[in-house]
Amino acid sequence: MIYFDNSATTKPYKEVLDSFVTVSNEFFGNPSSLHRFGVQAEKLLTQAREQIAMLLEVKSSEIYFTSGGTEGNNIAIKGAALMHKSKGRHLITTNVEHASVRSAMEQLKQEGFEITFLPVDKNGRVQVADVEKAIRKDTTVISIMHVNNEVGAVQPIEEIGNMLKKYPNILFHVDAVQAIGKVPQSLNENRVDLCSFSAHKFHGLKGTGVLFIRDGVRLLPLFSGGNQERKIRSGTENVAGFVAMAKALRMTLSKSEQGMGRMREIQQILREGLNRIEGLQIHTPVENSAPHIMNFSLQGVKSEVLIHALEDKGIFVSTTSACSSKRKSPSKTLLAMGVSESLADSAIRISLSFNNTIDEAKAFIATVEATVKHLRKVLN
Amino acid sequence: MIYFDNSATTKPYKEVLDSFVTVSNEFFGNPSSLHRFGVQAEKLLTQAREQIAMLLEVKSSEIYFTSGGTEGNNIAIKGAALMHKSKGRHLITTNVEHASVRSAMEQLKQEGFEITFLPVDKNGRVQVADVEKAIRKDTTVISIMHVNNEVGAVQPIEEIGNMLKKYPNILFHVDAVQAIGKVPQSLNENRVDLCSFSAHKFHGLKGTGVLFIRDGVRLLPLFSGGNQERKIRSGTENVAGFVAMAKALRMTLSKSEQGMGRMREIQQILREGLNRIEGLQIHTPVENSAPHIMNFSLQGVKSEVLIHALEDKGIFVSTTSACSSKRKSPSKTLLAMGVSESLADSAIRISLSFNNTIDEAKAFIATVEATVKHLRKVLN
Ligand SMILES: Cc1ncc(COP(=O)(O)O)c(C=O)c1O
Ligand SMILES: Cc1ncc(COP(=O)(O)O)c(C=O)c1O
Repeated sequence: MIYFDNSATTKPYKEVLDSFVTVSNEFFGNPSSLHRFGVQAEKLLTQAREQIAMLLEVKSSEIYFTSGGTEGNNIAIKGAALMHKSKGRHLITTNVEHASVRSAMEQLKQEGFEITFLPVDKNGRVQVADVEKAIRKDTTVISIMHVNNEVGAVQPIEEIGNMLKKYPNILFHVDAVQAIGKVPQSLNENRVDLCSFSAHKFHGLKGTGVLFIRDGVRLLPLFSGGNQERKIRSGTENVAGFVAMAKALRMTLSKSEQGMGRMREIQQILREGLNRIEGLQIHTPVENSAPHIMNFSLQGVKSEVLIHALEDKGIFVSTTSACSSKRKSPSKTLLAMGVSESLADSAIRISLSFNNTIDEAKAFIATVEATVKHLRKVLN
Repeated sequence: MIYFDNSATTKPYKEVLDSFVTVSNEFFGNPSSLHRFGVQAEKLLTQAREQIAMLLEVKSSEIYFTSGGTEGNNIAIKGAALMHKSKGRHLITTNVEHASVRSAMEQLKQEGFEITFLPVDKNGRVQVADVEKAIRKDTTVISIMHVNNEVGAVQPIEEIGNMLKKYPNILFHVDAVQAIGKVPQSLNENRVDLCSFSAHKFHGLKGTGVLFIRDGVRLLPLFSGGNQERKIRSGTENVAGFVAMAKALRMTLSKSEQGMGRMREIQQILREGLNRIEGLQIHTPVENSAPHIMNFSLQGVKSEVLIHALEDKGIFVSTTSACSSKRKSPSKTLLAMGVSESLADSAIRISLSFNNTIDEAKAFIATVEATVKHLRKVLN
C-alpha cells in the first residue's frame, strides 16, 4: 500500500493517539471547573499551548486552539474584517486560495465588502508588486496562503510581509496549513499577524487546529459563550485533542529537517520518472515549490480514471484538493496558472509525508507507466 | 472518589474511546477523497449520522456535525438571525440561558438586532404566555433551553412549541445540551426547528456535537469552505469523533430509562439529606426539574470554600456552571430566580451521571454534614 494523499489528511502518529487516550481517560475534567480535575485539565491545556508556542517561536498568548484549518481561516478573515469594518471594507487575496479562504471572502462580499482576487503567474505565484498595487486606503485584511494545497507553489510570504511593513494598519493573514513542517517560516521575524494551522495535516487528529494571533490584534469572535481561548473561541476545550496536537507538532518538527531532504529526493525521482511518460505534464513548478506535492496531468486520461486504476494497484492519490474532488469542477488553481480546462480535468496530486520512501516513489513510477500503457490501449 | 460534576463534563465511556482509536487508526482517510480510504471514512460518517438520526427519531438529512454545544448554539442563533434579517431583527430568549446563547444574542444586539430576554419565576421557569406576549411582527428566532445547566429547571418546550404553531415563520431553537438522555423530548412531534447537543456531556468526546436542523430551515454558515455538512459547516470532518459520539449517544439512551429512575432516587436522597442541614437552601425546584442536577447554597459559606473542603474528602462538585465558575460573578440563573446575591455566592451544583450510586449520595450527605460543622466552627 502506498499512501500518497497526505495533503488530504495524514495518519495520526501512534504517540499522538496514545496521548489522546491517556488525557481522555485520566484528565477528563472541564478546564473551567475549580476542582483538581479541572485544574489538571487546564494545566495540560496551558502546557500544550506553551509547547506549541515554543515550537512556533511565538508567545503562548498568541496561540489559540481551534477545530481546524477551515475554522482558523474563517475566524482570522471574518473576525478581522468584521472587527475593523469601520476602518474600511476592502480585502485582498489570491485566485488560488483554499476554499475556506475563498468562500469566507465571498461571504464577506455578500455583506458589502469589496474583494480583490489577485492573479498568479504560470508557476502559481502571486507578484509582490501586484499585492502592493491592490492596496487601497480602505484595505484592512490581506490573506495569502503559504503553500498551495493543489500544486505546492510557495508564495513570497516573507517579501509580502516586508512590503507590508509600510502599511502597519493592514492585517496580514497566512494560511500555513500545507506549509508547516515542510516549508519553514519564522512567525517571529516575518510580519504576519494571523496564521492558521490544522493538526490532521501533520499526523495530529482531525477537528483540532491552531490560529496564531499576534498580540494586540483584535478579532470579532464567531463563537461567543463561556469566553474560552481568551474570548476568541468559546466552547469547552478539546483538551485531549490539543495535547495530542502539541505532540504531533513536536514530532513533525523534529523530523522536519531530515524529512524535507528526503521528500526532495523523492520529488526529484517522481519528476524525472513522470517526465519520461509521453503526454504527461507536470504542473508543480521546479522553483518555489514545497517538497511534498507533485501535481501532473496525463493528457486524455481523466483524473478519476487514473485514481481508480492506481487504487487497484494499492496506490492512493487525489484529484486536486480533497475538498473539491467531489465537486468535479476543474481545479481553480490550475486554471489560474493558465492550464487548459481539459488538462485540468486530468490533474492528479501526489502528496507525501515523512513516512514515504524512495522505493515507493520508484514503485509509483513503474505503476503509472504500466497503467498508462494499459489505459491508452483501452481508451483508444 | 465521588465525581458529581457531570454537567461540566463526563468521563468518556471506554467503548467510545475504543471506537475513536479504531477509526483514527484504520479509517483515517479524508471523507472527501475519492479513493477507498476516503470512501470508507465517508461511509462511517454516514453511518454515524444515520445512527444518531435514528436515536433522535429524525431524518439523517437533519443531523449536522459540529464541534460542540457552543458551536451548535452559535450556528443556530446567528445563522438563523443573519439568514432571515431581511424579514426582521427581533429575537426572543430567556434570562437563564447558557453563556453561548446569551453571548450570541448580545453579539447580534451589537449588529442592530433587538433582543427580548424573558424573566423566569422562582422555579427558574419561563411562562409560555410571556413568550407569546413578546412575539412581534419582526420576530424571527426564539431560543430557549430545555434543561437549565445551573439548577436543572425544565422549560415548557413542548407547550412553547405548540403555541408557536400559530407562528410558522418564527424559527424555534432549543439548547438540549443538558437534556439529552435525562429529560426526553420528541423532536419529531415537537415544533422545534433547531436543537443543539454536545457529546462530552453524555460520555462522548470533547470537541464533538450535533445540531439538528429541520429539513427546509436555512442558515447562514459561520464557517465557509469545502462545503462539508451540506454547506452549513465546512472543514474536514472529525470522523473518529463523530463515530464515537454516535456510540456515546446509543449507550446513553439505552441506559436512559433505568438511569433516570436511579437519578431520581439519588436526587431524593440528596434533597432529604440536604434539607436536614441548617442554613441550607435548595434552589433546584421540586417540580419540572431534571433528575441529574441539585443546586443549593449553604448560608455564609462561599462556594469556593465548600468546593475545596469537599475536594479534600474526594468529592468533586461545581459552583454553578463550569463556564462561569472562573469569573466569580454570581449565577445569572439564580439571580433571575430571585435568589439574593449573597446566597448565590454560596451556590453549589451537584450533577450526576448514570454511573453515580445511592451509596455515593449517602456518603456525600454525611460528608457535607461533617464539613459544615467543621467550617461553621472555623468561620465563626
Ligand atoms: C491550504 C489549506 N487550507 C485550509 C485547509 C482546511 O483545513 P481543515 O481540513 O482542517 O478544515 C486545508 C485542507 O483541507 C488546506 O489544504
Ligand atoms: C446548557 C448548555 N448549553 C451549551 C453548553 C456548551 O456546550 P460545549 O461545552 O460543548 O461548548 C453547555 C455546557 O457547557 C451547557 O450546559
